Amino acid sequence: MGDDRLATLWAGLEELGCEALLVLARSSQDPDLAPFVGDVHLGESQLVIPRGGPARLAYLTPMEREEAASTGLDLITPEHLDMARWQSQAAEPDHLMAWVAEKSLEAAGIAPGRVALAGHGQAGVIQAAFSALARKGWTWVAGNPILLAVRKSKSAAELAGIREAAGGVSAAMRRVASRLAECAVQDGELWLDGERFTVARLRSEIGQELAAHGLEQPKGNILAPGEEGGVPHSTGTPERVLRAGESLVVDLFPRSSRRGLFADCTRTFCVGEPPEGLRRAHGLVLAALERAHLRARPGVRGWAIQEEVCDLFDAEGVPTQISTPGTARGYVHNLGHGVGFDLHEQPIFRKAAGAEGVLREGDVFTLEPGLYEPEAGGYGVRLEDLVYLGPEGLENLTPLPYELDPRAWEGT
Amino acid sequence: MGDDRLATLWAGLEELGCEALLVLARSSQDPDLAPFVGDVHLGESQLVIPRGGPARLAYLTPMEREEAASTGLDLITPEHLDMARWQSQAAEPDHLMAWVAEKSLEAAGIAPGRVALAGHGQAGVIQAAFSALARKGWTWVAGNPILLAVRKSKSAAELAGIREAAGGVSAAMRRVASRLAECAVQDGELWLDGERFTVARLRSEIGQELAAHGLEQPKGNILAPGEEGGVPHSTGTPERVLRAGESLVVDLFPRSSRRGLFADCTRTFCVGEPPEGLRRAHGLVLAALERAHLRARPGVRGWAIQEEVCDLFDAEGVPTQISTPGTARGYVHNLGHGVGFDLHEQPIFRKAAGAEGVLREGDVFTLEPGLYEPEAGGYGVRLEDLVYLGPEGLENLTPLPYELDPRAWEGT
Repeated sequence: MGDDRLATLWAGLEELGCEALLVLARSSQDPDLAPFVGDVHLGESQLVIPRGGPARLAYLTPMEREEAASTGLDLITPEHLDMARWQSQAAEPDHLMAWVAEKSLEAAGIAPGRVALAGHGQAGVIQAAFSALARKGWTWVAGNPILLAVRKSKSAAELAGIREAAGGVSAAMRRVASRLAECAVQDGELWLDGERFTVARLRSEIGQELAAHGLEQPKGNILAPGEEGGVPHSTGTPERVLRAGESLVVDLFPRSSRRGLFADCTRTFCVGEPPEGLRRAHGLVLAALERAHLRARPGVRGWAIQEEVCDLFDAEGVPTQISTPGTARGYVHNLGHGVGFDLHEQPIFRKAAGAEGVLREGDVFTLEPGLYEPEAGGYGVRLEDLVYLGPEGLENLTPLPYELDPRAWEGT
Repeated sequence: MGDDRLATLWAGLEELGCEALLVLARSSQDPDLAPFVGDVHLGESQLVIPRGGPARLAYLTPMEREEAASTGLDLITPEHLDMARWQSQAAEPDHLMAWVAEKSLEAAGIAPGRVALAGHGQAGVIQAAFSALARKGWTWVAGNPILLAVRKSKSAAELAGIREAAGGVSAAMRRVASRLAECAVQDGELWLDGERFTVARLRSEIGQELAAHGLEQPKGNILAPGEEGGVPHSTGTPERVLRAGESLVVDLFPRSSRRGLFADCTRTFCVGEPPEGLRRAHGLVLAALERAHLRARPGVRGWAIQEEVCDLFDAEGVPTQISTPGTARGYVHNLGHGVGFDLHEQPIFRKAAGAEGVLREGDVFTLEPGLYEPEAGGYGVRLEDLVYLGPEGLENLTPLPYELDPRAWEGT
């Protein structure tokens, strides 16, 4: 973690009146731990950062000594934590967690007092462990928001990891277009390689392409045809056969297996002639996305862009969350979200956001307007780019065609 | 969740003196929530199970109404939770979490009292939310252990999901053997398709094969050649070129993207002539694994089998954790672990285990003896099967060859 980020973190601790930050993690993939430890593979661990001091990493098994050492952090070893003792008794998990936290804080020179708590873990075990420590003089403050704020602006290494993931997503999206373009249409259904082309087959093709780029899909993906795409969060029924003249929302959000960083991109396809409603919705969504690209600049609030996009839809008579709160038709979600070690992080695009809702240089986020028609003959259209707000302006990390027609993607 | 499991859960609540179980989840992939909701895709949600009553699911966004309804559970809707109100204000995440918990418990008829808490989430946010509720009369007990106990014996649907994942792992392991068998050796290095064969290339091949079987690798994998395999948790340096005459530990632990269940299997390969130490270690590990297969029966403690395996190694002069606590050479880890919605769950194989350490019908777990030599010219050997203790006895879900020589896998 760079010096400027560490300084931001210390300032956050000062604001909360905390002496230190304690991060609990079940593995080095924890998004609150990952920024400190890089590409290593650790199991359960804890990190302590005293205000004004360097981070110390506590790891729990001697088998991880090499991995822990490669982080370059000051280490609190299993021997120091007397882990052998815990191996030989039937300890409750909350007792073990409290023990490691207390020993780690002590090793970092922190006496019982006010400490911010971050990371992730088992809800009941955390509650039991830290309530017990509270009875011994510790005061715990929610520290996850500090780390979310620190993680908002990306480091060079994080940006590189996100670029890598975005490159793989783009390749997978082009493979989708290419497969769809190859399809024959018979009785309205898509056929490929002599078989009906299903969501499951498309999912397998995507998975293979992402894997070839070192990407995994810990949160799945959305491949939602026709009426299934009419509800933004439907993930797509595997057995569903794809059809001509219907929308197909393809939303991919994989993570680099090496670096642990996400990318996120959506395109919408239609093989054959799109119905008029779908064609019009696609044009409006594309116009909204172009508007968002133009407006996303440092100092602008995400919500301000959301409002502009809503105005654009309003002018066309399309319901939005602003004009028609609670609508399931039209523009029903927010415009975007930050992306990093978590799929959804800062900046956020909600009305009620503070500093976490203001776009700044260094941010990586999505812009993803969409229109939805959940009723009979329904459809969904969403176009989502992943962008980086860098010193040279806004960079599109997913520069792909926007066309509904997969044949229009060829040669681009 | 079947009636017998629900009864087990209620009994667990009674033992803890709790009126209900509350499960916090950031998504339906949460291993404490997944057994209740099946294959759906939900974001942040909470589940309440009153002692003696059915489960109720609280979901937070109207976009998930279809997915939530498909669980068949009694629902607590975003409208009931007054989520629109939260959209319009800058709420702290712990306030929102506490609000949802209180409203959900109320909707399930639970008055402030003693409640077990399970699921997973942001450590600091949980601690802040539930400490605030404690001041309003609620008492929280660590409930994750109850759910771990309930999840120990697999349902038919869970077993089917694990079988599916195990089938994909087996296919990927056969692809590894086949690629290794195809390699040419030049100056001791393996070559494939005119290039040096690296860990990165092998990782990509495995990822593609697993993706074709609908599997993802949220926790990565271990592809550890030679000296890297001499430390059990080394995951393998991507640029490392594979060599003849060295060990290659291949440990795959993917999850079904549809069902959310893990499988876990390890084989060790050696292209060309294995050195004497490696050959001997392989023979001992195989003997240990065969012994474990014979001994793993209902009512047997995992630790008892661990002791037998240690005896077997001891008799050959190999250090173990029992004979030589803390050793980094020889047999340095436990024999196995349960597998399900978590990669590591019950049964456990530790000495200090209670009921969670006893093998029972319905359990799915690994058996994975290994021997390690971390010093110069080091190697690792681990052979890991995933097994199901069913009504017909012990079934090997990963029935693959054990041979070091990948050519010996052909035609099996």
